[in-house]
Amino acid sequence: MSSLFTHTQTQPNQVTLVEVGLRDGIQREATFVPTATKLAFIQGFVVAGVKEIQVTSFVNPKIVPQMADAEAVCAALPKAEGVSYSALVLNLKGLDRAAAAGLRKVDMGLPASETLARKNANTSIEAGMIEMAHMVERARAHGMKTRAGVQAAFGCAFEGKIPIAKVVTLAQQFLALGIDELSLSDSAGLGNPYLIRDILREVLPMAGDVPVVLHLHDTRGQGLANVLAAIEAGVRMFDTSLGGLGGCPFILSAKGNIPTEDTAFMLHEMGLETGIDMAKIAALSRDMEHVLGKELPAKMHKLV
Amino acid sequence: MSSLFTHTQTQPNQVTLVEVGLRDGIQREATFVPTATKLAFIQGFVVAGVKEIQVTSFVNPKIVPQMADAEAVCAALPKAEGVSYSALVLNLKGLDRAAAAGLRKVDMGLPASETLARKNANTSIEAGMIEMAHMVERARAHGMKTRAGVQAAFGCAFEGKIPIAKVVTLAQQFLALGIDELSLSDSAGLGNPYLIRDILREVLPMAGDVPVVLHLHDTRGQGLANVLAAIEAGVRMFDTSLGGLGGCPFILSAKGNIPTEDTAFMLHEMGLETGIDMAKIAALSRDMEHVLGKELPAKMHKLV
Repeated sequence: MSSLFTHTQTQPNQVTLVEVGLRDGIQREATFVPTATKLAFIQGFVVAGVKEIQVTSFVNPKIVPQMADAEAVCAALPKAEGVSYSALVLNLKGLDRAAAAGLRKVDMGLPASETLARKNANTSIEAGMIEMAHMVERARAHGMKTRAGVQAAFGCAFEGKIPIAKVVTLAQQFLALGIDELSLSDSAGLGNPYLIRDILREVLPMAGDVPVVLHLHDTRGQGLANVLAAIEAGVRMFDTSLGGLGGCPFILSAKGNIPTEDTAFMLHEMGLETGIDMAKIAALSRDMEHVLGKELPAKMHKLV
Repeated sequence: MSSLFTHTQTQPNQVTLVEVGLRDGIQREATFVPTATKLAFIQGFVVAGVKEIQVTSFVNPKIVPQMADAEAVCAALPKAEGVSYSALVLNLKGLDRAAAAGLRKVDMGLPASETLARKNANTSIEAGMIEMAHMVERARAHGMKTRAGVQAAFGCAFEGKIPIAKVVTLAQQFLALGIDELSLSDSAGLGNPYLIRDILREVLPMAGDVPVVLHLHDTRGQGLANVLAAIEAGVRMFDTSLGGLGGCPFILSAKGNIPTEDTAFMLHEMGLETGIDMAKIAALSRDMEHVLGKELPAKMHKLV
């Protein structure tokens, strides 16, 4: 038993929570959140101590109407030292839009499932990786930071279990593109702590100095246990969403990112730091419940 | 990183989930669950593969009206080989009632917080431990198995953090009474994975062959992360409640035991065994939602 958890003396104490509530969080909400409201939340996140915010995605507004104001949001982002803004892009067109909107960082990805690759982007994984290479190159030409990685890395809603070797190979291909951050996404909430551990054991040494960020959903209640497994493995960066908002429009069961406030609270209690003010983030979460007119699945926003 | 999680090759694969939905789970529900319904759930648990069920508590029915039918429930328990039935008792009177009702196992405890000891039982911890000694002796005289342990072991809603040494001392005193199982309860849902780890590192070696059972609440969303920490430390027994029902009538914020179906699902995905049939337990959880007329906080009962 004594060999467990011992790494904590040597790993950094600081954990970055990337706020994705305004991107993954609300992308399939029927209620359009007005641009000014989105910007007020972004300002709120900055004041609450959030260090990175995914502010929108540059996608087809006919498919994701919630993101129709991507340019308008980016045009009015509050200036905030030490805060990084990013957006999701799906293709070169979206990437160019993000660059034109003045963003300095983009997020992109490719599923480890052929079925999802076909459904999401009508492509194969192999063809998708060639597109990713073009996008990373273009982003670099725009002078943007690139975050890229493997979606459905811990299981697929259609294909079920994904061989670890497939995920590792894709991660290696992404790293070979010279990306700035590598993401592993559990879009369907199918990951379990031991699977997270096993994949990270392969991927973290490969990634070396390139930070690995985990994008977890709490679909099956394992979200924070998976955070713990990743923390133990050495990961120090997670996507979280205010109140546990979230879901993928293409995967019905993929509801609920891990909640920012619950994740921050657990990490703080464990002696790790996120820089996030619990009272302020909880208040924002309650505000979002008013905006959307529904209760959010997080727990801590009701307790602080 | 390689030293983490390595114990899993040597620890037993079998985890016991003690179903406490009909005890902790419904004790403060305003809707009285009829005795026949309780018995139908107990039969359902048996069929779903649950190996231990807390069927009631022998308490003052004026204070906990839901448990007014304790004797009637015990008189009609289904005969089921390999299934253990137990009940919570708070004092010698309750213990004698449980024995008279034919139960073979009782559960008792004492908080590590003076404030809670005063509020719950109008006693001090020291006086409470003397009462515990009497109760364990009496239970043994009745030929009953005894489970006993430390409540508010991971924090107190009134006192906040509890010194680990206090919990360890109480655990030692309980073990010295010759109890059959030692419980550590996180009544207020204040435990975090590293605190769980730190306390278990002290308590498990002391307990030796006496099984240690964790009673966790998911008040702050850390429930399953705490299960993971305890599994890593070597614990193989947890209280869980159907659908995540639950709460302590004395601690307002202590809502929601960890859900049976979500806990079982995570453990199964990790390659551990509980013997619980996911489809059957999920169906029972949906039945309980109908009985109580409200949605339960678990996730898996909506997905299987």
